[in-house]
Amino acid sequence: PDPDAAAVQAAMARNGQLTKPPGALGRLEDLAIWMAGWQGTDRPHVDAPQVIVFAGNHGVTARGVSAFPAAVTEQMVLNFRAGGAAINQLARCFGARMDVHALSLELPTADFTIQPAMTEAELLEALQTGWDAVDPASDLLVTGEMGIGNTTSAAALAHAICGGVPADWVGRGTGVDDAGLALKAQVVAEGVALHAQARADGIEALRCLGGRELAAMAGAILRARHLRIPVLLDGFICTAAAASLDAAKPGALDHCLAAHVSAESGHAPLLAHLGKAPILSLGLRLGEGSGAALAIGVIKGAVACHSGMATFAEAGVSEG
Amino acid sequence: PDPDAAAVQAAMARNGQLTKPPGALGRLEDLAIWMAGWQGTDRPHVDAPQVIVFAGNHGVTARGVSAFPAAVTEQMVLNFRAGGAAINQLARCFGARMDVHALSLELPTADFTIQPAMTEAELLEALQTGWDAVDPASDLLVTGEMGIGNTTSAAALAHAICGGVPADWVGRGTGVDDAGLALKAQVVAEGVALHAQARADGIEALRCLGGRELAAMAGAILRARHLRIPVLLDGFICTAAAASLDAAKPGALDHCLAAHVSAESGHAPLLAHLGKAPILSLGLRLGEGSGAALAIGVIKGAVACHSGMATFAEAGVSEG
Repeated sequence: PDPDAAAVQAAMARNGQLTKPPGALGRLEDLAIWMAGWQGTDRPHVDAPQVIVFAGNHGVTARGVSAFPAAVTEQMVLNFRAGGAAINQLARCFGARMDVHALSLELPTADFTIQPAMTEAELLEALQTGWDAVDPASDLLVTGEMGIGNTTSAAALAHAICGGVPADWVGRGTGVDDAGLALKAQVVAEGVALHAQARADGIEALRCLGGRELAAMAGAILRARHLRIPVLLDGFICTAAAASLDAAKPGALDHCLAAHVSAESGHAPLLAHLGKAPILSLGLRLGEGSGAALAIGVIKGAVACHSGMATFAEAGVSEG
Repeated sequence: PDPDAAAVQAAMARNGQLTKPPGALGRLEDLAIWMAGWQGTDRPHVDAPQVIVFAGNHGVTARGVSAFPAAVTEQMVLNFRAGGAAINQLARCFGARMDVHALSLELPTADFTIQPAMTEAELLEALQTGWDAVDPASDLLVTGEMGIGNTTSAAALAHAICGGVPADWVGRGTGVDDAGLALKAQVVAEGVALHAQARADGIEALRCLGGRELAAMAGAILRARHLRIPVLLDGFICTAAAASLDAAKPGALDHCLAAHVSAESGHAPLLAHLGKAPILSLGLRLGEGSGAALAIGVIKGAVACHSGMATFAEAGVSEG
């Protein structure tokens, strides 16, 4: 579905009557009107945001692409469930429901430099997990991830979809050194060369080079579109997963905003490829949905102003 | 007073133990540690933020420098009191107490192209109003303003303090056209020429070229320093008022963050003069404290992560 054109028109008309000079709330005005279109009302709201964190393990970690051991994925899932991670604090801070889905952590994806990361059945299962994880009653969605090795997977996906060279898309992830960075570029080059046929097909690229948590994010983002729930894209990995949907069908991410631009070096060019201007730029590079959860606050502020302010007529203020 | 060095050290130590790769929360980590220093604790908090909006009228409006009539200042004060303005929605959204102080609206400042905007007694009264308005129990302060004509006053103040030429500091305010912009530059040039002696003295510049609401913001920011309450600076007018304190005493704004960079053209160079990097950049140009109130959400997120996250040891997560 597309945004509700009548709601957009009504929201624009309302925006012009609010007690402020025209355009004085800058991007907050655009964000509120955009929310109005997807929510189908001239009074958009953020009363029930949902944060979903998906976790998966990656066979490509066998190549030594991460500064952390793969066991950390599961340890962090326990941390999410115990409420101790950054995303827990941010979800609570902005009044979001938070769900955690660990996807077959005991069964990492295959090393994509040797074979496709997932079988078709595995891909479908992960997409379905994401699809089912979205609460239809939520009014704003954040999809986050945890998966040791997944910046390498995301870089391979971005390289397959956007082109360029591997160095355009690999970054330091959780903190690899220069040698680690060169290794990541090598691994990405091998993977994309092996799965060259997938470059023309976003979903096939997701299967061959992605991971379960990336596929689950894509499934959730797709479900949100069907429910017309606006989505805040998080960092590089979330955006790479989303880019597979855009590659499959241009416009598939029209219901998504870029919440922030992360410090992971491939994120800014990936957002540029998607034509999305980030709301925040604070040097985050944690994943988990953290940057997107922080942007819930900005969206809350935007819709609070739009839906709560008095008009010139209501307040008896001269329009200048 | 200065930040608590022991609290900063303790907060840095804690930050290094939290369950995330080092530096992965980017600027949020710096903000939390900075808050720790001013609040004197390794677990900073934003439980009682305060927004204070000061309103004043400006004699220089007789020169036709604003797109809105001067009567709008009082009309907007009524709107603030009725809860209908943007700042009311943002203060509520981020759990801030909001206070409104109208400063002698029936008595505009003098036209600064003819004589000093305020007498010494008037300046002191406005500074005192700001000083007294700060709640000592608040843990984060936003000072906002309303005053038709006050971008011209702020531009004159910025020009007097920072130098350059008037065109560096005048902007479109609530929405003047090209002729209005040229007139503002002319008025600023006249005012700064008339009060040339004030250029070396931030507080005298504030008296001659500022306004009651600017002086009140300066008084509140000064009081916050004495109470070690961190301050979020809002847009161009708030920052110009603050710059008078910095001109009077370098370092006087060490307890202040630049909440955002506004669309008012003089704001970015003024922040650069003060050496402050904005947290948000969303094209706002409303004043009222709106951009700073929005940034309360970012600070809340930063301290929530810092003070609420589990350490590696607590969560049983490997440190890589």
